[in-house]
Amino acid sequence: MPVKIAVDAAGGDHYPNHPVQGAIDAVNADGDLHILLVGPEPLVSETLREKGYDGDRISVIEAPEVIGMEDSVGAIKTKPNSSIMVGLGLHAKGHCDAFVSAGHTGVLLAASAVVLGRLPGVMRPTISSVYPTVKGFRLMVDVGANLEVKPEMLLQFAIMGEVYAATEMGIHNPRVGLLNVGEEEEKGTETIRAAHALLKSRPNFVGNIEGRDILGGHADVYVCDGLVGNLILKFGESIPEAMQQLIGAAIATQGLAAEQVKPVMGVLKQAFAPFDYQAVGGVPFLGVNGVSFVGHGGSSPLAIQNMIMRAASMVSNHVNEKIVAALA
Amino acid sequence: MPVKIAVDAAGGDHYPNHPVQGAIDAVNADGDLHILLVGPEPLVSETLREKGYDGDRISVIEAPEVIGMEDSVGAIKTKPNSSIMVGLGLHAKGHCDAFVSAGHTGVLLAASAVVLGRLPGVMRPTISSVYPTVKGFRLMVDVGANLEVKPEMLLQFAIMGEVYAATEMGIHNPRVGLLNVGEEEEKGTETIRAAHALLKSRPNFVGNIEGRDILGGHADVYVCDGLVGNLILKFGESIPEAMQQLIGAAIATQGLAAEQVKPVMGVLKQAFAPFDYQAVGGVPFLGVNGVSFVGHGGSSPLAIQNMIMRAASMVSNHVNEKIVAALA
Repeated sequence: MPVKIAVDAAGGDHYPNHPVQGAIDAVNADGDLHILLVGPEPLVSETLREKGYDGDRISVIEAPEVIGMEDSVGAIKTKPNSSIMVGLGLHAKGHCDAFVSAGHTGVLLAASAVVLGRLPGVMRPTISSVYPTVKGFRLMVDVGANLEVKPEMLLQFAIMGEVYAATEMGIHNPRVGLLNVGEEEEKGTETIRAAHALLKSRPNFVGNIEGRDILGGHADVYVCDGLVGNLILKFGESIPEAMQQLIGAAIATQGLAAEQVKPVMGVLKQAFAPFDYQAVGGVPFLGVNGVSFVGHGGSSPLAIQNMIMRAASMVSNHVNEKIVAALA
Repeated sequence: MPVKIAVDAAGGDHYPNHPVQGAIDAVNADGDLHILLVGPEPLVSETLREKGYDGDRISVIEAPEVIGMEDSVGAIKTKPNSSIMVGLGLHAKGHCDAFVSAGHTGVLLAASAVVLGRLPGVMRPTISSVYPTVKGFRLMVDVGANLEVKPEMLLQFAIMGEVYAATEMGIHNPRVGLLNVGEEEEKGTETIRAAHALLKSRPNFVGNIEGRDILGGHADVYVCDGLVGNLILKFGESIPEAMQQLIGAAIATQGLAAEQVKPVMGVLKQAFAPFDYQAVGGVPFLGVNGVSFVGHGGSSPLAIQNMIMRAASMVSNHVNEKIVAALA
């Protein structure tokens, strides 16, 4: 089935280069994919030419305004001709099936909610993120969209997360866990205790998950407020660099020879691979009436390509229809 | 200066063995230390004899009731003759300078607050914890005592943490950072934004700290609510085991020879050393009118010994007087 994805060609630290290259790699990898590159037309068209793309599955859509990291959420009003607003507008009008961007997360979330609206029954759209564990990737929701939550919102995060994990991550009958300070159901804030009571009626709820059980993959969908999720997500992303520093210091102290260092590095490279965001590409806003993904500002072409593929998969698998059915 | 510490001989997973051994090792290491071992007297005395201790710097105090992990905070009422209540009572009456325990954290916190009371000016006692970073140990406060906080409480956590880090951790002029979802001061919940405004007037406040900057040691005292702190503390503690699993899998996949594996293990052992809780021993309740430490339930004798030493240091360095002065 042909899928058409709008890609923000003016988002992230390396535009237009990385979004354009990611788009080219995506259409080369998937023959059903059509891409609308949204951004300042002369710049984007020239980049596309420079890279030697001459096919007909990538079009350029003019959007002269650029939203940078220094912009605030107010940009959704003050920059109506930005790539984010034009791209989401195309999606809302049905001219494409999804929008992906490595741009300003806060602006993207607000713009997605405003331009696309919410799915029926959804209290608040949320950002989820895949999370590396020793058992492979799991899902964490929310990771920063909703810093303060109601118990019913946490229940909805769980349900939306379940649908995404089952449909897009290949996790059969995903187990839901509630991040908390202890395993006992009376632990936690009033909000968390009330959410626990709501979640308890669901057969796949495995209870509270403590901090020490996250990396072990003790649940498939970790439910939390956006403050906790954002801190733990970014903390997890920082593990490889911190460990590499500590390991580098240990190698220096122990005076290892070059032939001893080589296997150490080979092993570490493989062990840290699950923490590489490029494999994931980007994360979806769940609960909006459309498919909208956001990636790291520093996204490589490979990360952009993977984000495009994931958005296409979410479209093909009718994830939003499944979410609406699950919430009903 | 002689210091007398009451040690919970009926707390933790390995009582009376580990507390008794830790106490013996502590008095052997520090000639100024006197210890009161608080617990079921016949059992504790016999353990002391079995271990061959025949000095006069350890006494046994009878406390027949045992508070286990299955107990609730209500045990502070229903078990007045427990080691926790008897030990803290001795401290409150001035018969010793501190109380340390590897027992039930929730009970210990409540009992410390009730039996010892608060230091003048303190809104809420807090649990802080040292936290491993690539720059060495830093302090995180709160890590579970106060799940819901007011901005003024976060300010007090910062001030108490500063005093502890400067006095007990040898960190000159400690930098304070506020855990948050972004660096900008308008980020975060209403409570966090208000705390940011309060902290801004302090010269050593370095602003918001994101999850990715915790392991890098971007501040010396990380301030947060107890839900965030508890989850991040336990998450951090789980890193070595998770990495060992991932690294073990990588070694197996790559089919390394024994002589290649050995340097890998040597390097990892050193790199993970900062994450070993035994070196820390235990963490203080700050803000109570006394010195009260809690250690891991699984504390080894070495961990108990280190907790005793840290409590003695906090007494000798007059940390509480400094906290009162700093809050005034």
